[in-house]
Amino acid sequence: MAELARRLLDELAAATGDPPGITRAAYGPGERFAHGLIHAEAEKLGASARTDAAGNLYLTIAGRNRTLPRIVIGSHLDSVPHGGNFDGAAGVVAGLAVMAEFVRSGLAPPRDLTVLVTRAEEAAWFPLSYPGSLAALGRLPPEALAAKRSDSGRSLADHMREEGFDPDAVRRGEVGIAVEEIAAFIEVHIEQGPRLIASDRSVGIVTGIAGGFRHVAARCLGNYGHSGAEPRFARHDAVLGFTDLVAGLDAEWDALERDGHEATITFGRVESDPSQHGGSRILGELGFTLDVRSAEAAVLERVERRLHKLFAEIGERRGVAFEAGPRFTWAPATMAPVLVASLDRAANALQLDAPHVPSGAGHDAAAFAEAGVPSAMLFVRNQNGSHNPQESMEIADLDQAIKLLFHFVKGFDVR
Amino acid sequence: MAELARRLLDELAAATGDPPGITRAAYGPGERFAHGLIHAEAEKLGASARTDAAGNLYLTIAGRNRTLPRIVIGSHLDSVPHGGNFDGAAGVVAGLAVMAEFVRSGLAPPRDLTVLVTRAEEAAWFPLSYPGSLAALGRLPPEALAAKRSDSGRSLADHMREEGFDPDAVRRGEVGIAVEEIAAFIEVHIEQGPRLIASDRSVGIVTGIAGGFRHVAARCLGNYGHSGAEPRFARHDAVLGFTDLVAGLDAEWDALERDGHEATITFGRVESDPSQHGGSRILGELGFTLDVRSAEAAVLERVERRLHKLFAEIGERRGVAFEAGPRFTWAPATMAPVLVASLDRAANALQLDAPHVPSGAGHDAAAFAEAGVPSAMLFVRNQNGSHNPQESMEIADLDQAIKLLFHFVKGFDVR
Repeated sequence: MAELARRLLDELAAATGDPPGITRAAYGPGERFAHGLIHAEAEKLGASARTDAAGNLYLTIAGRNRTLPRIVIGSHLDSVPHGGNFDGAAGVVAGLAVMAEFVRSGLAPPRDLTVLVTRAEEAAWFPLSYPGSLAALGRLPPEALAAKRSDSGRSLADHMREEGFDPDAVRRGEVGIAVEEIAAFIEVHIEQGPRLIASDRSVGIVTGIAGGFRHVAARCLGNYGHSGAEPRFARHDAVLGFTDLVAGLDAEWDALERDGHEATITFGRVESDPSQHGGSRILGELGFTLDVRSAEAAVLERVERRLHKLFAEIGERRGVAFEAGPRFTWAPATMAPVLVASLDRAANALQLDAPHVPSGAGHDAAAFAEAGVPSAMLFVRNQNGSHNPQESMEIADLDQAIKLLFHFVKGFDVR
Repeated sequence: MAELARRLLDELAAATGDPPGITRAAYGPGERFAHGLIHAEAEKLGASARTDAAGNLYLTIAGRNRTLPRIVIGSHLDSVPHGGNFDGAAGVVAGLAVMAEFVRSGLAPPRDLTVLVTRAEEAAWFPLSYPGSLAALGRLPPEALAAKRSDSGRSLADHMREEGFDPDAVRRGEVGIAVEEIAAFIEVHIEQGPRLIASDRSVGIVTGIAGGFRHVAARCLGNYGHSGAEPRFARHDAVLGFTDLVAGLDAEWDALERDGHEATITFGRVESDPSQHGGSRILGELGFTLDVRSAEAAVLERVERRLHKLFAEIGERRGVAFEAGPRFTWAPATMAPVLVASLDRAANALQLDAPHVPSGAGHDAAAFAEAGVPSAMLFVRNQNGSHNPQESMEIADLDQAIKLLFHFVKGFDVR
């Protein structure tokens, strides 16, 4: 089944190469080429095609029952600059391969099957979370159209218009596909973490997409001093305060995992004030970024409670104070249990061992789940993470995901 | 006894004020004024005065036995920019007050008594440790004369010549005072730490001046990654590696104190690479400075062994690597036990409770101790550390140090 997928991925890589890696800018030439390639290929299969006001592409083959809400397989075709060929595109070609298998085998899916090719998923271009998917659902906030693309400095609206789409309709909330029209949204994506590599499995069934909270300008405040002059008992050392916080949250993360929960806790910036640096300086301030993610809202709350408890405990013990600074949050998205169970059954039927895995990063599926669409994701084993030219997915693994997805769609309305 | 000291300190503050605080640049106008003031005051007392090739000032009154090696009370008169009035100057005026007390009381000291007013002790001006004292002893390395003053960019030699001194003689190692001419070098200095404040004592007897080692460009190296994509087990997080190192060294410091040793361990810079910062970034590198001090060479060796053990253990556990980078060291200076015992006896005789205290920072006395001169120091209680305008020494506390020193000198040759 994967031959079509392999050929399309090779054509994409050849046409959008930008060493090192490939570049398919959102609403840029690479994404345009990729949409054209997939559009043409779907028409060869006999699919009907339409484009919404934001340029999302809907490729549909008819199901046995055309009145029921449809099954949508969706992903994006843009990439980060000098990224890898598989993040996004693997999911689109997997959907097309499933569609091709129905056509080849002469079977009709139980309901209409739509491959939805979204736009602009990569936040490297516009500082937005999945604006293409949100626009498809009529849920893109109007102010998002003013967001500037990182390379051009021009707005999302300008770039949409330049590609022949209709930002005014997007602004009015014109719907590309209504929530009620969708029975299930399924996304295939390369895994960005190492779990499938580590467990030696081809395909994983995603249980949730992490939400999180982030403090980008947190600080630990102590007193500056001279290393030789301040004994241990008299210090208010921001470095010790900060490292106690890191150790405390690391212990909490460890405890969460032992309790069977998933989370990530990350410090993406640690900086003392360069104007205060000195070999004999005790630091009175350390700035840092804290990023906490989990697919479980209760876990996020637990970590946040622990964070503020640690602020108080360490502040007391080390004679320092913490300032959390502004807090940004995004909600976790739970994958529909009924779809996860269906995918489990399909995997069992195929004797495919597809473990449950979390998604730490955001995906188009989160936009559909948040809108109330029953949503699910499959991860495909992939080495070296994503957003880099070293992404490394085996077509044989993608083939397993395509087979699983075909089986799932075929049996969608079977008990 | 302290009235002279008070008056001289007030005159210094008035003449060298540079808000906030005072500035007496090494070989600059503030230091020149201060040397002139002390010189004139000593001549009023009948002391003989001479200046060596580096501009160090020797003020001497005759002792009962003029053939024995002399007692030298020494300190410096330069300050850091916008510093406090007491760091250095308090020691000089204390020496002069002791001398004045001999003159006033009509007693001669048992041996010749010299107040040595050094030059350029503050490393804020030249990146050197006590070049004035080293030049007095004929021990200043010739290359030190090329060191640039931080404000002017001009060399130590140029600044010496400009003040009327003879850098060529300094370069030849011409001796201002020979080691064999000195029976004891005593320095009075404000305490830069809070021990005397904390123990509510006026004066402390210093047991040793810390040596140390420093890594100014150490790094913890892991792998960069995406916070949402890398689970706990797969991370090589430089922040966690660094945190474990800080915690490990902090535990070692705690253990050292419980074993009765003195040390300080300080991280004076902690920096991730700004070009790699991101809210969702796992950091692959963290740079830091490490400064370790102790008056005991064995303690420095113990901490250094522990450091390298931690590098290896944490590297293994966290999947990171440490690079220590260049290492700078300076030797600790032990205060002469015989002088410490004499000062203890003098304090007892005066019913003064003068605890033993360590010095974490370097002082002129270290240059004399390293040269083989029996050396000692008295610390005077002082709030808010040194090198800042908030230095806060009470004249009543300095008076206790002057009385102790007078008693010590008077009884120097008594069993």
